[in-house]
Amino acid sequence: MIGVFDSGVGGLTALRELRRLRPDLDLIYYADTAHLPYGTRSPDTLLRYARRSVTALARMGVEGVLVACGTVSSVVLPRLQRELSLPLWGVVEPAVQMAWHRSRSKRIGVLGTAATVRSRAFERGLSALGSAVTVSRACPLFVSLAENGFTAPTDPVAQAAVAHYLAPMRAAEVDTLILGCTHFPLLAGAISRFLPRVTLVGAGEASAAALCAAQPRVGHGELAVFATDDPQALASQAERILGGHLPCPVRLAPTCKDL
Amino acid sequence: MIGVFDSGVGGLTALRELRRLRPDLDLIYYADTAHLPYGTRSPDTLLRYARRSVTALARMGVEGVLVACGTVSSVVLPRLQRELSLPLWGVVEPAVQMAWHRSRSKRIGVLGTAATVRSRAFERGLSALGSAVTVSRACPLFVSLAENGFTAPTDPVAQAAVAHYLAPMRAAEVDTLILGCTHFPLLAGAISRFLPRVTLVGAGEASAAALCAAQPRVGHGELAVFATDDPQALASQAERILGGHLPCPVRLAPTCKDL
Repeated sequence: MIGVFDSGVGGLTALRELRRLRPDLDLIYYADTAHLPYGTRSPDTLLRYARRSVTALARMGVEGVLVACGTVSSVVLPRLQRELSLPLWGVVEPAVQMAWHRSRSKRIGVLGTAATVRSRAFERGLSALGSAVTVSRACPLFVSLAENGFTAPTDPVAQAAVAHYLAPMRAAEVDTLILGCTHFPLLAGAISRFLPRVTLVGAGEASAAALCAAQPRVGHGELAVFATDDPQALASQAERILGGHLPCPVRLAPTCKDL
Repeated sequence: MIGVFDSGVGGLTALRELRRLRPDLDLIYYADTAHLPYGTRSPDTLLRYARRSVTALARMGVEGVLVACGTVSSVVLPRLQRELSLPLWGVVEPAVQMAWHRSRSKRIGVLGTAATVRSRAFERGLSALGSAVTVSRACPLFVSLAENGFTAPTDPVAQAAVAHYLAPMRAAEVDTLILGCTHFPLLAGAISRFLPRVTLVGAGEASAAALCAAQPRVGHGELAVFATDDPQALASQAERILGGHLPCPVRLAPTCKDL
């Protein structure tokens, strides 16, 4: 049984890919909706929230956790991993690898939350591989747009925000763009409309693919979904994003107040 | 000493008005930035966050708290007040009164967070006074726009969001609009551009005016500011919003983890 953890609905882009690639895996999705958005939190606060969520998953008996959140993956994953014996898989390295292999020009852009861009985690990975040009841009509004359904490619609010944030990517002539926050693929249509010839690499999808390749255990394709606030709200959002009902109810998550 | 409490920078619109009207008051501003935005939380989660914040202010010795948050004021204030002996002043009643007195047509609109609009607290107040037409609209993106600085009247993202949310207000021909979330006055320029002949009533300003009228105690004009996450981020935002440095540093708030 594998845990998939995000602050909200963004990690569903990883969950969807996991279930597509490996319908046999048993999965628990855990959304810390009581504390989203993560991307504007300080590292200490982020660590506290992530510790609680991953520990809740550990107590449910998962054998490892896909940290399907770009902010946690880029800012506090090494600190979190040192504290916990459970294997944690982040999204940075898989996304960097996928972007590197898909890019021809090796001019690669990175979009993330404010905290992710400050961490420079994706840039360090790309630089280590030899990327000629790396441009990064914090897009703090994208999470709210995705959480509130402003995701249609022709939505005027989404278009205005995309134009605001992505002008530097057009100017830098990147050929590949890492969507370093798992919420951002929900805006892929609007992003591709603005940057039509750019290859998009979703951090969640990349990490799901990497995890599946390394996951030999076969389960029964079971799924449980938890949210730390308002399960019904997450169920409605998930339905919109996944284009259909979740195959299970969303339950209120057990809290780990002692942490 | 009076506490002023909000999830983030929105309550600064009330604080600014308090200090303008009564420079003698001693004030403590408390921003629960570790848990913002409040407007999409469930009532139980909202109550938990508000209880912690108000209790932290009580332990600092304030004699009452201006709940400068439209969501807490409209959704959980009666429950919170029953739990605590400290006087709590909300923004709903003062905003309703001010809107009623300023409106000629008594066609009044209400903007709020999703939780505020669901509560129907402003509409109940307006109906009790006899308002002929009340239209309300949840604007969940406005808090993110305000927190991330998309507030200029000509900002394309702000303009697109304002047009999206406020079309029903134009259609309903309201002459007065309650900005029922204290973040929303930060978008007043963009809102007035879209609805040029409509009178705007900021819930925070209205409540500050009502509180000052009823506050006989004179202090020394002292101010302390606390945030539950990243004090420097709040200081920078406050500087942008207030158009100058805060007269005091922002400190990390004491937490009330036992609640």
